[in-house]
Amino acid sequence: MAPQLEPFFKQVDDSSDAFIDRLRAAVAIPSISAADEHRPDVFKMGAFLASELERLGAEVHQRPLGKQPGKEHLELPPVVIARYGNDPNKRTILVYGHYDVQPALKEDGWATEPFELTIDEKDRMYGRGSTDDKGPVLGWINVIEAHQKAGVEFPVNLLCCFEGMEEYGSEGLEDFIYAESKKFFKDADAVCISDNYWLGTEKPCLTYGLRGCNYYAITVSGPGQDLHSGVFGGSAHEPMTDLVTIFSKLVDSQGNILIPGLMDLVAPVTEEESKLYPTISYSMDNLHESLGSETSIHPTKERTLMARWRYPSLSIHGVEGAFSAPGAKTVIPAKVIGKFSIRTVPNMESEEVTRLVKEYILSEAAKLNSKNKLDVSLMHDGKWWVSSPKHWNFSAANKAVKQVFGVEPDMTREGGSIPITLTFEQATGKNVLLLPMGSSTDAAHSVNEKLDKRNYIQGTKLLGAYLHYVAEEPLNA
Amino acid sequence: MAPQLEPFFKQVDDSSDAFIDRLRAAVAIPSISAADEHRPDVFKMGAFLASELERLGAEVHQRPLGKQPGKEHLELPPVVIARYGNDPNKRTILVYGHYDVQPALKEDGWATEPFELTIDEKDRMYGRGSTDDKGPVLGWINVIEAHQKAGVEFPVNLLCCFEGMEEYGSEGLEDFIYAESKKFFKDADAVCISDNYWLGTEKPCLTYGLRGCNYYAITVSGPGQDLHSGVFGGSAHEPMTDLVTIFSKLVDSQGNILIPGLMDLVAPVTEEESKLYPTISYSMDNLHESLGSETSIHPTKERTLMARWRYPSLSIHGVEGAFSAPGAKTVIPAKVIGKFSIRTVPNMESEEVTRLVKEYILSEAAKLNSKNKLDVSLMHDGKWWVSSPKHWNFSAANKAVKQVFGVEPDMTREGGSIPITLTFEQATGKNVLLLPMGSSTDAAHSVNEKLDKRNYIQGTKLLGAYLHYVAEEPLNA
Repeated sequence: MAPQLEPFFKQVDDSSDAFIDRLRAAVAIPSISAADEHRPDVFKMGAFLASELERLGAEVHQRPLGKQPGKEHLELPPVVIARYGNDPNKRTILVYGHYDVQPALKEDGWATEPFELTIDEKDRMYGRGSTDDKGPVLGWINVIEAHQKAGVEFPVNLLCCFEGMEEYGSEGLEDFIYAESKKFFKDADAVCISDNYWLGTEKPCLTYGLRGCNYYAITVSGPGQDLHSGVFGGSAHEPMTDLVTIFSKLVDSQGNILIPGLMDLVAPVTEEESKLYPTISYSMDNLHESLGSETSIHPTKERTLMARWRYPSLSIHGVEGAFSAPGAKTVIPAKVIGKFSIRTVPNMESEEVTRLVKEYILSEAAKLNSKNKLDVSLMHDGKWWVSSPKHWNFSAANKAVKQVFGVEPDMTREGGSIPITLTFEQATGKNVLLLPMGSSTDAAHSVNEKLDKRNYIQGTKLLGAYLHYVAEEPLNA
Repeated sequence: MAPQLEPFFKQVDDSSDAFIDRLRAAVAIPSISAADEHRPDVFKMGAFLASELERLGAEVHQRPLGKQPGKEHLELPPVVIARYGNDPNKRTILVYGHYDVQPALKEDGWATEPFELTIDEKDRMYGRGSTDDKGPVLGWINVIEAHQKAGVEFPVNLLCCFEGMEEYGSEGLEDFIYAESKKFFKDADAVCISDNYWLGTEKPCLTYGLRGCNYYAITVSGPGQDLHSGVFGGSAHEPMTDLVTIFSKLVDSQGNILIPGLMDLVAPVTEEESKLYPTISYSMDNLHESLGSETSIHPTKERTLMARWRYPSLSIHGVEGAFSAPGAKTVIPAKVIGKFSIRTVPNMESEEVTRLVKEYILSEAAKLNSKNKLDVSLMHDGKWWVSSPKHWNFSAANKAVKQVFGVEPDMTREGGSIPITLTFEQATGKNVLLLPMGSSTDAAHSVNEKLDKRNYIQGTKLLGAYLHYVAEEPLNA
């Protein structure tokens, strides 16, 4: 055990009420980035973080990002950047988090007031932003404070990057990171992001991979305006018929992607990789609980985790322009836009995926002999990310988990994407680690979002311990 | 020529300004049945018709239909029923029309104020309700007035049934017609409905058939709530995938219905019927103009008209529960409801159609091997209708068209449904004729609805002449 940890841990326990009060104060600020009328609250939340960091002696800047594109009457909230410590003999760790939250209204189905931190008898702390991402962000501040109070030397130099637009697409952040990677962030030796979740509820995990996402639109148009199906049904080519026929050729009910060549791009499973899955703390019951049903495709957890993490998937999201309301309407929609996306994995390059998608859809469309016009376009893409879990950044986190929780962490990937992860990796050229604080049942983005007290307090210890082990790790990258 | 027509025709011409003023007064009342706040205007319009008919000496009743189901704070507008003439030696004709209109706002794209009748240099009379259906309804009143002013004896007893909820599903009317068919309407010898349109712009038509409509919903559900496609894509059966696969098996891009056995129900084309199509005043250019594109399936007008009138069609209308907004959302919808309908023709019985539809969809669904739940349900059905065009009711209308317009009318069917037609036929047991006043370019339900002055004035002559020929027709039914 690193010698400094015992007094630090004790101080975290002693300060736990104060740390919870800090979270309560943060949750009380409804910093909803998607709601124009709450923009002042987002600024207020940024200022709250800045003042907490300044009070602890950090160098803090609230960096403006300018007007919000498309909503020029609104200023983007600032990126709060900070440096705590400037010792050239220590490693420098850059941590990222966000201080904005998803919208929340009591009447959406919350059992408690969403912007009042409410702790139940099982020490579950309910409140919007508790787990996503105010708890983890405050965790870093708690770590600094506990070191000061315990009189323990801080083991690294800490750089902070806390943004206020994550729930609205991290508007403006990518350029900012690229620019600052050569300036304010230039000393960073590694990056740590705490903005995701454990796979279950009992065992922490380290996350080293994310799937990418290529999002496509198929636009089919024919008539000059919507038509009455009584008058024109049978005498005109219907865009919706063409679209559903194409949709049906993309993926089958077992989740198999039917686009020729696409699966050939996927990196094969190595023997080493296949050994990872059986030990992971996850079960088909966990899957069924989170699905709210037993409509799983694969019979085992191993196949399920591989489907989620390391194989691509194709989902059909919906149709724009067709009849979508309750009830019955006898319309032939004139122009329909079908939306689908492909979750990508190594080694699927976006351009190659798009080439295969377009080639296939256009060749299938030609077979329809329809006079309607059909186009395929890429709406957006985000690359997959896989890190090196043998890097000292991960080794340090691994030791910290064992120290705080007494278990070996699960080494996980995620099915979804956190685009900023790849941005940090590419901009800084350094290893990036995802080190979650919350658990799988925290309901981020949903009603009754919560963070367990255990996850918050032990999580604060974890973040601190991680920094200590970082300081001790030999160079290997 | 029937001796009474000359003075009647002359009187219609002499009264044309007054008749247009009558239409102007009616259009000025925004009797929008779908808008709660306009309900008083619907009542006002009913009272206007009642007072016009009373002034001409008719026996008039405004019959209440009670509260509006589902909106019990609203009274349904009355059915205005009237009797003009009670001579047992004359035939009795029951005419139907409606005095409510579709919504209309100038900002929807109207070139003129929708509730101010505006006549342009080509004598097109623009205004909401001008052609649908205030013009035709006032046509009957004009006929009575012109007879009185010209001193011509009215050739028949006239029964009127004018409703105020047609644009909102004719709420309450069906029961009313069944009840009154044994009372107020019991003397009716035939029924005439003027609430549809010529096939083109130059030649009147008599309409003797309508397609029916069976509307279905396919509900596919699996997960307990919408899922994130990053997290669950590839590991859970997706309802949308199942739905589009089923959709793709219903109809192909050439409009061929793929449900086994369905086409076997369709009455074969007789040699006599096939001779009807070539003479009809319609062209592929007419179709392309109304489509706003050249995305027609069939190469000839004959095939097109048969597809519209006498063959079934299947249209996919849309999906409820999927992502339907602009932009990109990476959701796996938990429950989707796909809507489609089949336009039915002789001899497709609704029950048999539904049996074939369900049997086929459920057998195709079983092939998917999906754990999702799939249901098919009939949302509503309306039967097709084909009348006897050799009945004296049609012969009289045929002679009237030749008299007024100098041409043989097109004998047409329609692809859409007018459910009240079948109700009148079944409730009264009498022949029903559809005798349109407006032309194909009148834009009923759309912006810039209009009725040409020629169609209104010559149409009034047509309705009057029809009644005279009705009086002279020998019994044949």
